[in-house]
Amino acid sequence: MEVEPGVRTGEVMAKAEEAGLFYPPDPNSWETCTIGGNVAENAGGPRALKYGVTRDYVLGLEAVLPSGAIVRTGSKTIKGVAGYDLTGLLVGSEGTLAVITSIVLELVPRPREVATALCVFPDAVAAGRAVSRVLAEGILPRTLELLDDCALEAVGKGGPFPAEAGAALIAETDGDDADAVFSSLERLGAICLREGALDVLVAQGEHQREAIWKHRRVLSESLRRLRPRKIGEDVVVPRSRIPEAIARFKAIGAEAGLLVATYGHAGDGNLHANVLFGDEDDPAKVQACVEGIVRAALELGGTITGEHGVGLAKARFLPWEQGAETIALQRHLKAVFDPLGILNPGKIFAEPAATLGA
Amino acid sequence: MEVEPGVRTGEVMAKAEEAGLFYPPDPNSWETCTIGGNVAENAGGPRALKYGVTRDYVLGLEAVLPSGAIVRTGSKTIKGVAGYDLTGLLVGSEGTLAVITSIVLELVPRPREVATALCVFPDAVAAGRAVSRVLAEGILPRTLELLDDCALEAVGKGGPFPAEAGAALIAETDGDDADAVFSSLERLGAICLREGALDVLVAQGEHQREAIWKHRRVLSESLRRLRPRKIGEDVVVPRSRIPEAIARFKAIGAEAGLLVATYGHAGDGNLHANVLFGDEDDPAKVQACVEGIVRAALELGGTITGEHGVGLAKARFLPWEQGAETIALQRHLKAVFDPLGILNPGKIFAEPAATLGA
Repeated sequence: MEVEPGVRTGEVMAKAEEAGLFYPPDPNSWETCTIGGNVAENAGGPRALKYGVTRDYVLGLEAVLPSGAIVRTGSKTIKGVAGYDLTGLLVGSEGTLAVITSIVLELVPRPREVATALCVFPDAVAAGRAVSRVLAEGILPRTLELLDDCALEAVGKGGPFPAEAGAALIAETDGDDADAVFSSLERLGAICLREGALDVLVAQGEHQREAIWKHRRVLSESLRRLRPRKIGEDVVVPRSRIPEAIARFKAIGAEAGLLVATYGHAGDGNLHANVLFGDEDDPAKVQACVEGIVRAALELGGTITGEHGVGLAKARFLPWEQGAETIALQRHLKAVFDPLGILNPGKIFAEPAATLGA
Repeated sequence: MEVEPGVRTGEVMAKAEEAGLFYPPDPNSWETCTIGGNVAENAGGPRALKYGVTRDYVLGLEAVLPSGAIVRTGSKTIKGVAGYDLTGLLVGSEGTLAVITSIVLELVPRPREVATALCVFPDAVAAGRAVSRVLAEGILPRTLELLDDCALEAVGKGGPFPAEAGAALIAETDGDDADAVFSSLERLGAICLREGALDVLVAQGEHQREAIWKHRRVLSESLRRLRPRKIGEDVVVPRSRIPEAIARFKAIGAEAGLLVATYGHAGDGNLHANVLFGDEDDPAKVQACVEGIVRAALELGGTITGEHGVGLAKARFLPWEQGAETIALQRHLKAVFDPLGILNPGKIFAEPAATLGA
């Protein structure tokens, strides 16, 4: 499919499905975000666990450089290794290298069957252990979304979440064969129960499936029930460190007297840790909490951003993750595309002045 | 898994499997090639249809620039979008940008079941049509390897290949559930028969599986039974154009009085078209035949190389596929990494003198 960058992602998905095909990347904002934004950020989403991220579905691009030069990258075929991977360099470059004007997407066959389960755990340690066990036993669900106790608090107990729930996983398997899809989900559920799950609810039909997902989809908004403001981090840790990461994020918050709600794509180790606060909270304390979370993710062998990008907000964290020579190389590459620095100045790489001030 | 570039790919695969994990990329030379070579070329292989290519399994790299600077790219986590995709830029750069010293690979759960079938067709048109139908009906085999009549001639008729066979597909499905894996392969076989297959043989056990694959694995050598020398091209065409591509390659050969054997990863549209010749054949004729195949692939919407790279041999074809501004951009990027041009000079981008002479 060849699209202009302003097309909404939901429209790309719908058009693909009309043709019996499938565009897998599904950022939670798919109803409102654009495919151009997804390409600029290399967006992920719950299905990335099985299907990968936006980069994995971009075959080629047309882009305009600040010089006015128009470049075409990649190809319209599934494979291709002619020259450097300019497509990959532009995907996730956050608008700092070129203006993308056209996008060639790979579509895949649409899986005919999807099965969804909600697995409720007493705590995030048990849920995190279950994530590792499921993957270690060779099951590759398309999603494994985790909600910690603070996230469940925001969603509201009752309904599918018993009062004693301290964490939950939303798991989905998909494929062509209904029996195989359900049997994978059953194996997954059995592993969760073995790791201490309180309950595993398998959705019977689209209505129950939607009932499970709606809690996850509005979660970013639901957090405001607990505190009026939030800063959401988007870190990744090795999957085996998820329980430790959640515990550390919570402890960092507690030390500052702040709530931290963690949820996200646990199957990828991609956690959205949200520092919740109000106008009365000291901004310096909030900031220290955010920084503590980012540093903890790095100490656990992780990265400062899994799918949201660096932008302005995380530019000062980039040197915590990458060496001076790696950053210098990237700045030199940017200068090849954009010698005058007119594209999204200050994004990804902090301006020298900002670095001094930080 | 973190490895040095000199480790053989087969050893990477074996070590992964010892741990119950799976390194999917499987270039046919896996017993002898090195993982560093695979990274430099972004190698593919039969399983790329379902699992993707080397790039899809490289999480991060350590590389030394000609300046002596050591850069670390990517991360050890599955996801990560901090800064530009330097990892992707280095993968497939054919040793022209940096010296890679360490490679962090992603491993996935090992599929527990594999099923293999040999589907024999009267001609490549029917086989090519079957490839399109299988994928259109939502089946994603891990391999769909095609052999045309000339390739079958080299392998030798008899055994699994009846005298009237004019093309063959080797298909494999895999997954965790034996029933589902075999039922996918049965559906695939039924589609092949509907599209005119003469026979579909499903391997019963490892012994029969190996019997099918050994023909494919030695094919590159078997071609010498027909003619003592060959030049193998590695083009990709949109999958729907495979029958047309094979017919055109054959006609281009016939016009020059030369045999062309086409085989390869039909599921990706990645065809290895081999011009066969002897010492008595006019080198200019052979060269014209090679050029005709490359031009035909481009006219069909394809690319000059799917997995072997550009190197020296195809550097003069790059401008046939990519515009002057796209190539100029890549040369500028190379100059950032390697200002003195000491890394693999003449590879990918023809030297100015060579360009003038072409």
